[in-house]
Amino acid sequence: MPVASIEFFWDPVSPYTYLASTQLPSLAREAGVALVYRPFFLGGVMQATGNRPPATVASKGRYMMADLQMWARAYKVPLTPPETFPAKTILALRAGLVTEQQGDGERYAQAIMRAYWGQGRDISDPAVVSAVLSELGLDAPAILALTEQDAIKAALKANTEEAVARGAFGAPSLFVGEQLFWGNDRLDLLRRYLDEQAA
Amino acid sequence: MPVASIEFFWDPVSPYTYLASTQLPSLAREAGVALVYRPFFLGGVMQATGNRPPATVASKGRYMMADLQMWARAYKVPLTPPETFPAKTILALRAGLVTEQQGDGERYAQAIMRAYWGQGRDISDPAVVSAVLSELGLDAPAILALTEQDAIKAALKANTEEAVARGAFGAPSLFVGEQLFWGNDRLDLLRRYLDEQAA
Repeated sequence: MPVASIEFFWDPVSPYTYLASTQLPSLAREAGVALVYRPFFLGGVMQATGNRPPATVASKGRYMMADLQMWARAYKVPLTPPETFPAKTILALRAGLVTEQQGDGERYAQAIMRAYWGQGRDISDPAVVSAVLSELGLDAPAILALTEQDAIKAALKANTEEAVARGAFGAPSLFVGEQLFWGNDRLDLLRRYLDEQAA
Repeated sequence: MPVASIEFFWDPVSPYTYLASTQLPSLAREAGVALVYRPFFLGGVMQATGNRPPATVASKGRYMMADLQMWARAYKVPLTPPETFPAKTILALRAGLVTEQQGDGERYAQAIMRAYWGQGRDISDPAVVSAVLSELGLDAPAILALTEQDAIKAALKANTEEAVARGAFGAPSLFVGEQLFWGNDRLDLLRRYLDEQAA
């Protein structure tokens, strides 16, 4: 059975989601499938499932910092831990839904994740979200105004609830049909799964 | 600086530790380093660090079952989820320390992990631990008697406390010097790290 797409549920607050975002476009291209960007609110996922952020365990938090740097070196991508962590990402996520509607979803999703984890910028700040949009040549004031629409707010909530209903409990959550792949460290299994489906 | 060894802190209760155990001998051999088996009690690590088993989050537990099967297929190793989970592994771990002293540590560690996750046998049961030892041609009654020594009990406690003090919070915990690698899904980063150290 041919596979149409990878659904990529992302929240820029998650460093492993940033790491995955640097690899997924080429992974999807090489597998010949679409990559569908779906913003979701990780805080809501954690609350709904009872999952907890890694740094809740102190030694896991310390390990994670070294681990992130090892992944970044392996991928040859920048990693600059932001001073503001965790950032409030609701505005950044709503802008993801607006840009998606306008056909700029991928460029924006990539840029906002890179701004936070690649450059360490504080994406809690609306001025930073605005700057990221402007740097892409997009109409930042118009997009930020559209994030206030009830339909956009509802769409973010709906994406989050849908991901939880389908079995997500963390980020990144990658779905191929109903098969979940959780985490940057599952990209090899995802690649293998797509190969098997194509065979 | 040449690297002497990978210290492999293992508890057979952990399925990802079993998966890693199927890959680590060849990984270490190819990297030209020793693989040192160090039994530790994962329950004690969880209690000391405040970490929780994955299945504490229901959807994570469900995902884990599919995930384990995908890893087993990728590695071409058997995976038979045991009916008794989590097993009590204190006796199996103490036998790990005794066999290590007798020069049979690796064969036993490999066999007890395979018995639990590869074959689904109940390693809580002393008769099963005994059978695994016998299948290796070892003197099971003598080894089980030696597990009652205070020095063996203390050594298991010491391994567990040492791992926690060095930053471990789960299993498998793999140390190269003081650099921790946590999880079956970090074997690629471990391989890369060993290559860099050797260069």
